[in-house]
Amino acid sequence: MNVVELIRRKREGETLTKDQLQYLIGGYVQGAIPDYQMSAFLMSCYFRGMNEEEMMTFTELMLHSGVVIDLSTIPGIKVDKHSTGGVGDKVSLILAPLAAACGVPVPMISGRGLGHTGGTLDKLESIPGFRTDLSIEDYKRVIASTGLVMIGQTREIAPADKKMYALRDVTATVECIPLIAGSIMSKKLAEGIDALVLDVKTGRGAFMQSYERSVELAQALVKVGTSFGKRTLGFITDMNQPLGVAVGNWLEVVESIDCLRGRVGPGSDDLMEVTLVLTGAMVHLGGKTASIDEGVLRCREALASGAAYQKFLELVKIQGGDTAFIEDPERYPNAAISIDVHATARGYVGSIDSFEVGLSSIMLGAGREKVDDIIDPKAGIIIRKKVGDAVQEGDVLATFYTDREGVVPAAHDRIAAAYGIQTQAPAKSPMIVSVVDGSGVRPWKSAISST
Amino acid sequence: MNVVELIRRKREGETLTKDQLQYLIGGYVQGAIPDYQMSAFLMSCYFRGMNEEEMMTFTELMLHSGVVIDLSTIPGIKVDKHSTGGVGDKVSLILAPLAAACGVPVPMISGRGLGHTGGTLDKLESIPGFRTDLSIEDYKRVIASTGLVMIGQTREIAPADKKMYALRDVTATVECIPLIAGSIMSKKLAEGIDALVLDVKTGRGAFMQSYERSVELAQALVKVGTSFGKRTLGFITDMNQPLGVAVGNWLEVVESIDCLRGRVGPGSDDLMEVTLVLTGAMVHLGGKTASIDEGVLRCREALASGAAYQKFLELVKIQGGDTAFIEDPERYPNAAISIDVHATARGYVGSIDSFEVGLSSIMLGAGREKVDDIIDPKAGIIIRKKVGDAVQEGDVLATFYTDREGVVPAAHDRIAAAYGIQTQAPAKSPMIVSVVDGSGVRPWKSAISST
Repeated sequence: MNVVELIRRKREGETLTKDQLQYLIGGYVQGAIPDYQMSAFLMSCYFRGMNEEEMMTFTELMLHSGVVIDLSTIPGIKVDKHSTGGVGDKVSLILAPLAAACGVPVPMISGRGLGHTGGTLDKLESIPGFRTDLSIEDYKRVIASTGLVMIGQTREIAPADKKMYALRDVTATVECIPLIAGSIMSKKLAEGIDALVLDVKTGRGAFMQSYERSVELAQALVKVGTSFGKRTLGFITDMNQPLGVAVGNWLEVVESIDCLRGRVGPGSDDLMEVTLVLTGAMVHLGGKTASIDEGVLRCREALASGAAYQKFLELVKIQGGDTAFIEDPERYPNAAISIDVHATARGYVGSIDSFEVGLSSIMLGAGREKVDDIIDPKAGIIIRKKVGDAVQEGDVLATFYTDREGVVPAAHDRIAAAYGIQTQAPAKSPMIVSVVDGSGVRPWKSAISST
Repeated sequence: MNVVELIRRKREGETLTKDQLQYLIGGYVQGAIPDYQMSAFLMSCYFRGMNEEEMMTFTELMLHSGVVIDLSTIPGIKVDKHSTGGVGDKVSLILAPLAAACGVPVPMISGRGLGHTGGTLDKLESIPGFRTDLSIEDYKRVIASTGLVMIGQTREIAPADKKMYALRDVTATVECIPLIAGSIMSKKLAEGIDALVLDVKTGRGAFMQSYERSVELAQALVKVGTSFGKRTLGFITDMNQPLGVAVGNWLEVVESIDCLRGRVGPGSDDLMEVTLVLTGAMVHLGGKTASIDEGVLRCREALASGAAYQKFLELVKIQGGDTAFIEDPERYPNAAISIDVHATARGYVGSIDSFEVGLSSIMLGAGREKVDDIIDPKAGIIIRKKVGDAVQEGDVLATFYTDREGVVPAAHDRIAAAYGIQTQAPAKSPMIVSVVDGSGVRPWKSAISST
């Protein structure tokens, strides 16, 4: 087989066989195929895509480039959730202990912040002492005892994806549905799950900004999951403004603690709506209820009883975190600088550009511009006015926190500019737009009140 | 500026500015931009192309990555020819001394064999002692004294192209018109020419197999040449069967010597038709005649008088070659094995797949499969029956020469299979299909007999 010939075939829109994909991916992981040939292949995939069979084979090869964890000795249907990434998206922090509190084992391997979006690992690591770098043995031990575990991708999990993802990031070949599907699903399938709920974000703060592309991605993910024998359900959810109020690692942990303790503040309604439906779906797929709606009701009970919060404390403790900071978040150090961003006109918040808010939070220190940048867990933004809120001139729209004095003027202007103030109240749009399963896509409808 | 953002822009079909292209190409030549980012950019160019301005800028940047030779002290209009490459294409070996014999200075920098096609350098180097690795000073000295020089690309000439071409070759990003135009023209513009004749091959043995793509390439090349102030004329010529009779380095030199000495054998008519029109065009662009037709007549005189052959001897001598082998080609060693390929049916030769003939010649040792393969100058194929010839069962279609005993059966079958024998005589198609200049493309018509 000849690498140039395989690149040329993909470039011409031909379908590659399993042997050919194996030759490329295996050769790449072993170092026999250099980065410059793989990046030309990946760019060809960007333009030509893959058919369903290629996408399945690609995922399988990425999956089997490493260890596939066996959790068959853990009783129950293991269910995880994956989000394509958003701004202020701290759903996993609430959802994982909540599902576990409802009796569904949750084995979760998460990622770090990427582009303008935050990452669950970075958020968890803002908790003093919390360790996300567990070995596979410890991972199994934690889920066996707690019904829940949250770690980062280890060396053993899908190493082909790890190497290829780093290359895609620096060669503008990220935004390609079969490559995204293979990357996400190879990691999820390696976790030892039985079922998976997907949160595919759509809108200005999402990687897939158009609704059509979001549906396309959700369908690809559901297809791959289903073909590997895992019940898979996808939700398309809105990312046209930050989710909840906090953007930044420790700030998001605090908002999550509040939600887990039943103290849902103004502005966190959208966060809880998404979290309840996704967790309800996990509880349903986990075989605990006959429908998603019943799953949602079960989740509300677990929140009201304090069981979800207790499960979170249990997780923090077993993974080495200091629960004193969870019990009393005020103990955490504050950022040196906090600045309010004021409204300069009266009216209604018509839009909050979550992409710009995400990039602003990185300027403040909440994310990385380069791979080896160090995150400041205290840095971030609290959204005080959300889409639909009425504002008077001088009202505080948002407050931002940083230790970096030099970025203050630019961050202020960027956050101010992210707000669109209009004279009329905007129409309310649904948080959960649609649901995707093996039979297709349909609008999301619930028989119960969403909040 | 951010490399990933520039790749993304080209991927999305945007136009890059001069500064952006400079950043990419300059950074690549200096090693600041790695191969894997450049190959992703090149693949984006394959899919998105470049507009005219980008192509000009790209060529200019490649050109000025190295030395631009100044031949202004050499009197006369310096004219070169470039061919996009074919099988049996030894036109340069006859054309260069012929144009020089007509008083047109010819500064020629050529390439090596590529893919299934041969290269002028490899052919010249089959002449014992002939040196193609002259310094730029020697290059100037030779053309000043001989009116003619033929060398290979030096380190100083368009180093950006050299580095990028090597990358394109291994990443399936060769077949992209603006990249091809930039690569060819940056080298030609660096030679010190005033005018250029282009031979864009079309058909089965050409890199551009379709006529439309060949015209597109010719137009791009003419546009670039013209915009750099060089009179540029393109010819689309047929490559649906090998040109002339010889395929292989020394074999092609021998055919060229015969043609230069006026001993044009059966089967070399097509070679001489193409050579005379291209050289006539050079003589015309060189200001020696009022038309291409008159240029062709001047060339015939230079052949008949022996002036062209004498010029070739002069060139071989000044570049270190042993003219004894030119004067008496029989002195050259023969290949160990020569095998005839026989017709298995009677009829007419309808087609000779020149792509397959080219690949067969590489098997025999006449070309390289890998960059560091060593060429056997004696190896190759003599075409005994050409398209249109009547054949009887058992007639010799071709004879091949090699020292490699192991390849004989496969080469035999491949060459036999390259011949299409049919019951009716095929329609005769023109060798020179059309001519392209600044005003467009038109069918080639000559007022004089073509042979």
